[in-house]
Amino acid sequence: MSIVVVGSVAFDTIATPSGRADNVLGGAATYFALAASYFTDVRVVAVVGEDFSAEHENVMKKRGVDTRGIERAKGKTFRWGGQYLDNLNEAKTDFTELNVFENFQPRIPDAYRDSQFLFLANIHPVLQRQVRQEMNGVRLTGGDTMNFWITGFAKELAETLKNVNILLINDTEAKMLANDKNLLRASQKVLAMGPQALVIKHGEYGATIFFREGAFGIGRHPFRAPTLPLDEVKDPTGAGDSFAGGFMGYIASQGELNREVLKRALFYGGVMGSFAVERFGTERLQSLSRDEIDARFQIFRELTHLE
Amino acid sequence: MSIVVVGSVAFDTIATPSGRADNVLGGAATYFALAASYFTDVRVVAVVGEDFSAEHENVMKKRGVDTRGIERAKGKTFRWGGQYLDNLNEAKTDFTELNVFENFQPRIPDAYRDSQFLFLANIHPVLQRQVRQEMNGVRLTGGDTMNFWITGFAKELAETLKNVNILLINDTEAKMLANDKNLLRASQKVLAMGPQALVIKHGEYGATIFFREGAFGIGRHPFRAPTLPLDEVKDPTGAGDSFAGGFMGYIASQGELNREVLKRALFYGGVMGSFAVERFGTERLQSLSRDEIDARFQIFRELTHLE
Repeated sequence: MSIVVVGSVAFDTIATPSGRADNVLGGAATYFALAASYFTDVRVVAVVGEDFSAEHENVMKKRGVDTRGIERAKGKTFRWGGQYLDNLNEAKTDFTELNVFENFQPRIPDAYRDSQFLFLANIHPVLQRQVRQEMNGVRLTGGDTMNFWITGFAKELAETLKNVNILLINDTEAKMLANDKNLLRASQKVLAMGPQALVIKHGEYGATIFFREGAFGIGRHPFRAPTLPLDEVKDPTGAGDSFAGGFMGYIASQGELNREVLKRALFYGGVMGSFAVERFGTERLQSLSRDEIDARFQIFRELTHLE
Repeated sequence: MSIVVVGSVAFDTIATPSGRADNVLGGAATYFALAASYFTDVRVVAVVGEDFSAEHENVMKKRGVDTRGIERAKGKTFRWGGQYLDNLNEAKTDFTELNVFENFQPRIPDAYRDSQFLFLANIHPVLQRQVRQEMNGVRLTGGDTMNFWITGFAKELAETLKNVNILLINDTEAKMLANDKNLLRASQKVLAMGPQALVIKHGEYGATIFFREGAFGIGRHPFRAPTLPLDEVKDPTGAGDSFAGGFMGYIASQGELNREVLKRALFYGGVMGSFAVERFGTERLQSLSRDEIDARFQIFRELTHLE
């Protein structure tokens, strides 16, 4: 079943201890779409500028991603520059040029409206809500957000979260959103804001999914997926969006929506995140095979499962 | 089979967001011994002062811990004061009074010499090496260390590590010891220094065990155990030592030394660490039952295992 992703397409300039890349294709929607494309049909809603070429679009098209929802606006595509020279776990932003992204008004093509799954990548919570309302026939909505919206647009975000089934954020964001330093208590507070499940991403330590009581079946406990210790993280950019793509893409590929599916999805999220960081930009996500993905899924299983 | 632990016994004064405790029994050897006592016979080698009462000793004796190796010296017991008011993941030391611990010269009682397992808690690497040499008939030696020894006594520590089978340290210490910021590369460098296995503790994110190729059986991959998300961490003091106690205690209780045993031991380590932080000091570790421990082991399994 197909999934619609609404978010940014960008050109990134990245410096890491392994090297640098200039103006490479990036953005949350791009990473998400490529990662999810190994599991299900993906449809992108985004805005780009005149500097977005057919070659850029082909990166997605080659993976079967539907790009009809990518609007071309006058001006330049969103550009971001950042570095991870001191700390691979946290980007230091060098510059942000919103360009056409500043006035992004997501428009859902009619051809996308039968999609049953939706992912609201990290954009203004009011835009997220509008898209969610327009796509009110979906079976499941996933969402992302960030500290900027949590601190500056708390009320708007709270409204949006009422209609997000699964929120994916990191530890810092979860604690900030709940105003609680304890992760378990924070998760309960976030779940009380609307989502039936909350995925908290721990960077190199994996991710935990917390369920609202009774949601997606029974069970008392959260569930944790690992990441793979890698001997070189070339570029952490897009790891979280690739995680979300693997997670949501796997869910959309399944008929059932239950805890076991969400748990396996958490593993696939980690798998796609671990591939993303092996090369600069989206390079690694462009050329995978489902066999490689499933082989790594098996490694994740061996990494965590007792006999 | 019995295990000998050599390390500190202390009185701790601790402040956390949940409250405070003054001069409560602590120290690495104490936490280790209590945690390990649920799995196997434990024998302690330590030094205490005249302020160490029969009541204090009974905390260990009640758990069947052999205290004949606890030497009484003139003066006061090691005292440490610390707080976790801003950050539960890192202690801020208020004071350290080494007292009798300053001149600690571990003496192994003859009655301990038939032990097949040894744990060298965090003491001077030269003392660790002396103990290891004295106990040269052991089947398996585990060890701990810290940044102070890594930076100031690198040569002495390197000599000690040649005869430690399993080293247990945290992320920061592993990266410091290997002088490498990448955890996987750091693990390989530490393993090249002597240990056949390396346990890296990730605090609230669990722990990973890395194996030297061919050690403890075959297999290419490391293994990761979780921690349990708790709604209140009352006192993190001793979590790492309790982890080590559960880990080594479980290993000592098993006939075989293979990867599957070490993986389960990693889970038991996490289980004992998660109990330790539920109450101040060693309180929780004094009153557990093996049933409670195995029930939590089961929760850890549910937290990580797909169907």
